[in-house]
Amino acid sequence: MADQIVIYIGNKPFMNYVTAVVMQFTSQDAKEVLIKARGRFIARAVDVAEVVRKKFLSDQVDISKIKIDSEERQVDQGGKKRRVSTIEILLAKK
Amino acid sequence: MADQIVIYIGNKPFMNYVTAVVMQFTSQDAKEVLIKARGRFIARAVDVAEVVRKKFLSDQVDISKIKIDSEERQVDQGGKKRRVSTIEILLAKK
Repeated sequence: MADQIVIYIGNKPFMNYVTAVVMQFTSQDAKEVLIKARGRFIARAVDVAEVVRKKFLSDQVDISKIKIDSEERQVDQGGKKRRVSTIEILLAKK
Repeated sequence: MADQIVIYIGNKPFMNYVTAVVMQFTSQDAKEVLIKARGRFIARAVDVAEVVRKKFLSDQVDISKIKIDSEERQVDQGGKKRRVSTIEILLAKK
């Protein structure tokens, strides 16, 4: 999907992300929006998806797919590695 | 599924949960284990699932289903409500 719309969840105010997703579905008429997050922002990504589908766009948008994954990352020059989890939540118009 | 094994993720040491899940698959010979978490423990539930399937039981266990949901809860007597997200990650033997 070349034109997949992706919203990355970070530490900006919560409603920024909710508004960004909602606007893609409303003013941009998107059929799908992919919400992505890593590490501690995973819980927030779930919150964003839930608020969009249950509060702002209830009966219009639902969860189409959820994927979790992880990767090992080098955290220092000594070769220590740390696993970081990721989540992808695909919201789609009903 | 009456005999569904469920591990709830909270604030105990991380490896407690990993060990609990791994032991269900190994010594208890479980076919499936359901990992559940709420709120800020959602990111941790993803971490537990990822460490089990990629590190401890790689090639033996994989993610079979992921579900997210949320519920509104009364937080005080004044009637204020707060949405709390939940996640369920079903791990299954390959």
